[in-house]
Amino acid sequence: MTVPPETRELLTALMAEYAMAIDEDRLEDWVELFTEDCDYRVVTRENVEQGLPNVLMWCDNKDMLRDRVDSYRNVNEYNLHYDRHILGPLSFIGKKDGLWTFDVSYSLFQTTLEGESRLFSVGRYRVEARLEGGAARLKTVTVIADTGLVPSLLATPI
Amino acid sequence: MTVPPETRELLTALMAEYAMAIDEDRLEDWVELFTEDCDYRVVTRENVEQGLPNVLMWCDNKDMLRDRVDSYRNVNEYNLHYDRHILGPLSFIGKKDGLWTFDVSYSLFQTTLEGESRLFSVGRYRVEARLEGGAARLKTVTVIADTGLVPSLLATPI
Amino acid sequence: MTVPPETRELLTALMAEYAMAIDEDRLEDWVELFTEDCDYRVVTRENVEQGLPNVLMWCDNKDMLRDRVDSYRNVNEYNLHYDRHILGPLSFIGKKDGLWTFDVSYSLFQTTLEGESRLFSVGRYRVEARLEGGAARLKTVTVIADTGLVPSLLATPI
Repeated sequence: MTVPPETRELLTALMAEYAMAIDEDRLEDWVELFTEDCDYRVVTRENVEQGLPNVLMWCDNKDMLRDRVDSYRNVNEYNLHYDRHILGPLSFIGKKDGLWTFDVSYSLFQTTLEGESRLFSVGRYRVEARLEGGAARLKTVTVIADTGLVPSLLATPI
Repeated sequence: MTVPPETRELLTALMAEYAMAIDEDRLEDWVELFTEDCDYRVVTRENVEQGLPNVLMWCDNKDMLRDRVDSYRNVNEYNLHYDRHILGPLSFIGKKDGLWTFDVSYSLFQTTLEGESRLFSVGRYRVEARLEGGAARLKTVTVIADTGLVPSLLATPI
Repeated sequence: MTVPPETRELLTALMAEYAMAIDEDRLEDWVELFTEDCDYRVVTRENVEQGLPNVLMWCDNKDMLRDRVDSYRNVNEYNLHYDRHILGPLSFIGKKDGLWTFDVSYSLFQTTLEGESRLFSVGRYRVEARLEGGAARLKTVTVIADTGLVPSLLATPI
């Protein structure tokens, strides 16, 4: 499925900022990319393919995302590692009721404060995003991780 | 070389689906991205730079691609690993006789069923693609792998 | 921040060529992507966040870039490894005095001549680029490496 270049531009910019906000530790900016009635969750690919309901992390509205970032800020006074997302191109699935649905593959690297980088997770985002008057917002983001990671309660989002 | 945004959109969507179809184990969909007279081959960069003719995998029409996917399905009842491609932006080379030529760098990660992810291969695709009436199809894909991998007969495509 | 699709096209093509020119060992082509009064430097994220002035590599005009590539060519008769950059989408910051400012995350893999690939560096580019009459040129590129690498004098650029 292809889309108008203006649509790819808006949604590519949205996902680029999604990744850069996390990587640059601007988690409050990251929250602002979501709609109030958003749904953010992290699952593993294994569970999806087996039809299992396990969810590693789940926030079903924006206040829960805000709370989560607040908790993270209170517990971790300093950044404990650096994140770096590399996203592939958006793969569009469809449009319905004003929502664009697309997939984006990601690789996520983490670097320790000593400067060692390693692969942390790969997978894909299934995204529903709303375009309103030139602004794009995230309605749902489901992180489907190939890697069988177990993020702790205090981890940064993926 | 730059191109009209509509052209980048169509060919970026084509390559995004190329990667996602392999990663999501939709190999039959992957085959449908090619023209009937397609050419798909995997070579190593070392051989290309030394002018050696070695080819690790070669299908010089669409029926050979179909056969290969059929064989893979018959031998492997279940997926043995998860693939994840992260593609960079398209780097356009030229246009001739209705064919667009471009390069795309890729990184390919594999995740075992136990959930461990690792780097499997990096390299670039040299692609010739045809645009007809808003549809894009792959005429030739040459995978030039930096990594000196030896894909077996039963491996998934890169 | 979103931009006209034509602008994203031109600057994405510029960065795609930036990466491909290094990876394909066309360093002379890489130099030609810069303006005469360019500034190219490599710093670590740790130093940026601590406000330290350390710079791992610094060329503050195009002649210095040319000299550096010449030196590299004279010392290294053959390529000692293969580079492979995978860039994410451009994240636009602003436009001022005809200069577009944007960030691009990168992952850089190196492959030995024996064919083993490994992660070498991740980080981001902070770029200022000029668009003139359909041509795009790099005014400043600051490589902000998450990875605490120490490139030698003879290393290829990042």
